[in-house]
Amino acid sequence: MTNASNKSNRRHLVSQVEEELLRYIQDSPVLVGEKIPNEFDLSQKFNAGRSTIREAVKSLASRGVLEVRQGAGTFVLSPSTVEDDPLRLARYTDKLQLALELFDVRLMIEPGIAELAAMNANDDDIAEIVRLCDETEELYLAGYDHVRKDIEFHKKIAHCSRNRVVEELVPLIVSAVFTFANVTHRLLLHETIETHRAITDSIAKHDHTGAKCAMEMHLIYNRQMIMKLMKQEKTY
Amino acid sequence: MTNASNKSNRRHLVSQVEEELLRYIQDSPVLVGEKIPNEFDLSQKFNAGRSTIREAVKSLASRGVLEVRQGAGTFVLSPSTVEDDPLRLARYTDKLQLALELFDVRLMIEPGIAELAAMNANDDDIAEIVRLCDETEELYLAGYDHVRKDIEFHKKIAHCSRNRVVEELVPLIVSAVFTFANVTHRLLLHETIETHRAITDSIAKHDHTGAKCAMEMHLIYNRQMIMKLMKQEKTY
Repeated sequence: MTNASNKSNRRHLVSQVEEELLRYIQDSPVLVGEKIPNEFDLSQKFNAGRSTIREAVKSLASRGVLEVRQGAGTFVLSPSTVEDDPLRLARYTDKLQLALELFDVRLMIEPGIAELAAMNANDDDIAEIVRLCDETEELYLAGYDHVRKDIEFHKKIAHCSRNRVVEELVPLIVSAVFTFANVTHRLLLHETIETHRAITDSIAKHDHTGAKCAMEMHLIYNRQMIMKLMKQEKTY
Repeated sequence: MTNASNKSNRRHLVSQVEEELLRYIQDSPVLVGEKIPNEFDLSQKFNAGRSTIREAVKSLASRGVLEVRQGAGTFVLSPSTVEDDPLRLARYTDKLQLALELFDVRLMIEPGIAELAAMNANDDDIAEIVRLCDETEELYLAGYDHVRKDIEFHKKIAHCSRNRVVEELVPLIVSAVFTFANVTHRLLLHETIETHRAITDSIAKHDHTGAKCAMEMHLIYNRQMIMKLMKQEKTY
């Protein structure tokens, strides 16, 4: 094997272990602030060499998930990466309360953003929004993780507002969709898929009031899901 | 003179020259991207030693106003400091259009924020909001610069929302008030003072709908002022 393909295989191995480790942190009950198993245990768990583990840990540290404290061990800083959660909302532990606060703000901004998008989207924008809506729905129906596509859908709508100040709100929207997906364990309501479609159709027709209302409904359905989860939490 | 008081005098001198230089950049027609006069000319202009000028320039560079390019000179990066304009909106040159885009977003978020503040402000918060409202009005009536106090007023209301996601919007509000003050040359409408008072009174009575409406009126009056300025610009 050449040196170059050796290197590329190695990089592939590291990123594979890195993704496994990330999923382990997200799915298992390793809480924020808790220590993860040591290098030796991890190398056994993931069936990888210690140097591979070390590189994967280093990479997850640079992505904001882990923190290596010299002499003390490696700790979970956040269950999510900076790409997924630019506002680092995962640092808060009262997830459902945070999700409610997020929806109060999303309800302030996203209906108005959808309204602007319906006024300003051009044909290319509309084709892209339709594509993202279709793809999110396909992933949902096939039982795959739809969250990244869902984020792209909301981001694209924000870009179509053609408002430079709305662009400053995109990190908030990204963190919000991601946080919501986590508290609901990435379960999607059927109503979410339906209201995504209603938002898309309204924007495609440049029906700005329709887009505003569809976004409002989309957010209200999801907010109700949080209220339900909060009630369940209190019951147990 | 002791060494310590020498040092403190020097620091005082530098910050005095720094403020003069900042005002010169903000008031004179030095545009973003343009070069400012060289050290020698500045030292004559501000009647200060070249080392004082150098320190003042360095400090304004760290505050995001100037950029020193080795061998090429010192350039204006932004007419405002990072404290005043955390979103660096001053980088955009079509000020009136930007101000309109800002108001589209402020109209999305600030009425809802005022509503939350009216629901959640406690007695200490209300006393503070009344104080900031009084002080902004006093500065206005006395013909002094009210902008920093105005920013404090809007920031305090945002804090009273008791919503952690709203906190993420505070830099946007700060940059927005600052940008508006600049396009209107810090002229205040009488209506601004009146609607500030209406917002304050509504929050003090926990009248959340009143606070929401008063904030909406406040923003609409100011938006109309921008529309008027845009019309004037087109006429000339």
